[in-house]
Amino acid sequence: MTRIVKPVIAITMGDPRGVGPEVIAKALASESLHPICSPLVLGDPNILEQTVRSLDLAMKVAEIQKGLPLDLPPGVLAVLPLSWLSPGPSPVDIPGEDSSRASFAYVEKAGRMVLAGQVEAIVTAPVSKEAISRLGIPFRGHTEYFAELSGTRDFVMMLAGERLRVALVTTHLPLNQVSGSLSEEKIFSVIEITGRGLKDFWGFRAPRIAVAAFNPHAGEGGLFGKEEEIISRAVDRARERNWDVSGPWPADSLFQRAAQGKYDAVVCMYHDQGLIPLKLLYFDTAVNVTLGLPFIRTSVDHGVAYDIAGRGTASPRSMEEAIKLAARMAVRKRQASNPKI
Amino acid sequence: MTRIVKPVIAITMGDPRGVGPEVIAKALASESLHPICSPLVLGDPNILEQTVRSLDLAMKVAEIQKGLPLDLPPGVLAVLPLSWLSPGPSPVDIPGEDSSRASFAYVEKAGRMVLAGQVEAIVTAPVSKEAISRLGIPFRGHTEYFAELSGTRDFVMMLAGERLRVALVTTHLPLNQVSGSLSEEKIFSVIEITGRGLKDFWGFRAPRIAVAAFNPHAGEGGLFGKEEEIISRAVDRARERNWDVSGPWPADSLFQRAAQGKYDAVVCMYHDQGLIPLKLLYFDTAVNVTLGLPFIRTSVDHGVAYDIAGRGTASPRSMEEAIKLAARMAVRKRQASNPKI
Repeated sequence: MTRIVKPVIAITMGDPRGVGPEVIAKALASESLHPICSPLVLGDPNILEQTVRSLDLAMKVAEIQKGLPLDLPPGVLAVLPLSWLSPGPSPVDIPGEDSSRASFAYVEKAGRMVLAGQVEAIVTAPVSKEAISRLGIPFRGHTEYFAELSGTRDFVMMLAGERLRVALVTTHLPLNQVSGSLSEEKIFSVIEITGRGLKDFWGFRAPRIAVAAFNPHAGEGGLFGKEEEIISRAVDRARERNWDVSGPWPADSLFQRAAQGKYDAVVCMYHDQGLIPLKLLYFDTAVNVTLGLPFIRTSVDHGVAYDIAGRGTASPRSMEEAIKLAARMAVRKRQASNPKI
Repeated sequence: MTRIVKPVIAITMGDPRGVGPEVIAKALASESLHPICSPLVLGDPNILEQTVRSLDLAMKVAEIQKGLPLDLPPGVLAVLPLSWLSPGPSPVDIPGEDSSRASFAYVEKAGRMVLAGQVEAIVTAPVSKEAISRLGIPFRGHTEYFAELSGTRDFVMMLAGERLRVALVTTHLPLNQVSGSLSEEKIFSVIEITGRGLKDFWGFRAPRIAVAAFNPHAGEGGLFGKEEEIISRAVDRARERNWDVSGPWPADSLFQRAAQGKYDAVVCMYHDQGLIPLKLLYFDTAVNVTLGLPFIRTSVDHGVAYDIAGRGTASPRSMEEAIKLAARMAVRKRQASNPKI
């Protein structure tokens, strides 16, 4: 009988002055994660130690110098030390430059480990893009970094809540530029990557995908805009490839049907179109997933939150869900590549 | 002791071939409306009679030839007859032109009655703008019609659910044209009209208004668009006039806070920004309110729905809520103009 080894998940600690260390420590302290994965934090033992202490968590920080943290008992926070910052009186009292450099080192190491097959998935805690860029490191964000590292051209940002998943055709773009950047090719690609992701990582055999319209009332037959024609062509093309896809649907009534289970994902044309309904339903449990990479990567759905860092009030729910989803995705991926498992 | 007379609400029957007659008959059959208002349907006795029969409702259709339907017992559907269409085998089997003309006559009469002070509020059921326009009647929609009739330049479309109210700066406009049509003046005007509506009709002494940003992450300091500068100026101006208003807030996380009670209304820049969260939370109970008119007007939040008309499956919940809200608004308006009541 083969013994199933729990997937090892690399969790980058994020900006040491942000809420990353806190949400990681809290998430790993909850014992629900222990049975499903072996988490390895890529980060700073000093900061984690201090975070655990200041939160009064019943956890032991264990430095993993080599090998992987397999079969550790619950209550152990395994960290691969990549920095040794001297924490100030509070975990967030840390000089900026060193901590920004460290936050990038965690991400770099995670990318190398996952490409080398040492870990099965990456979960990222938030960093400050601005702070890293100021060091002269060209860094536009985790997603772009991992895409470049793995030579991935087409990837999709998906946000997943318990009963609603949204995939974005455009992300951090002025809303006024979205129309000009929509193309049949791009929308088709997002539909396909989303469909493949739903098959490979969620186990849907024939995922049902709805595509949102761009204009109010889906343009009301061309009266309020023409972008729906481009979307229609992309939908037609995806149907020809046998995807179960429909749309463009008027966005205002679409998400309720999706959340009721009529669709497995909604392809959205712009950031807020997808994030307004997602955050309304899943404010602190939504997970950010990058689809299309050659490895599994999830992330929390919030930023560094410097304003509340160090207070002990940050919710670890999104981090917990990001780790759970990464673990489930890793198991699905194993099953897909070896159906006998 | 003064006897309080229930407000008389004119309810236009809408397109006879749409779901209007059905949702009105069902709404008035529920006895919850009887204690709070005296509804008067402006419509067609034949169609209503047939609708009541086909739905098997315990209701009597009573033609009101003159005077107002005060003190009627429950179970009576009071109709001011403005057409006598001969219904087909099903209530929706009616030749198109006559019924479209009739649907406009109900709206016209409602406007005249409310301006003459004969009724205290109007609730409208859906009509087909296209069908009415085809008759050569210039009709862009109820809201525009009532605005013109009353010489109102600035009005606001608000959608109200139990715990979320959204006011729209732009409505049925291609999304790509929204940016160009945003101005400090327009946004300021929507904030003010919304604020006054919340005071006059909902009784909030110092309504708390949040204004949504246009771009993702509220433009992230100008990185993803500049529209937030215009919005900021409008917010500043409204604060100078002592409105409790804040923003522009990133739209993705705003509606959850609003629905939790932190704000009394959210001013939205475009149709779907407001309607996505509203319809997600209040799919069949949302009410459309026109603020800024010299009279009270609410409406259902759905269209004629020809596709399901005559089947008996249309939900009357939005119509019920539209009538309830109109009745509450009428009582508030009386109290505001005569605080002794």
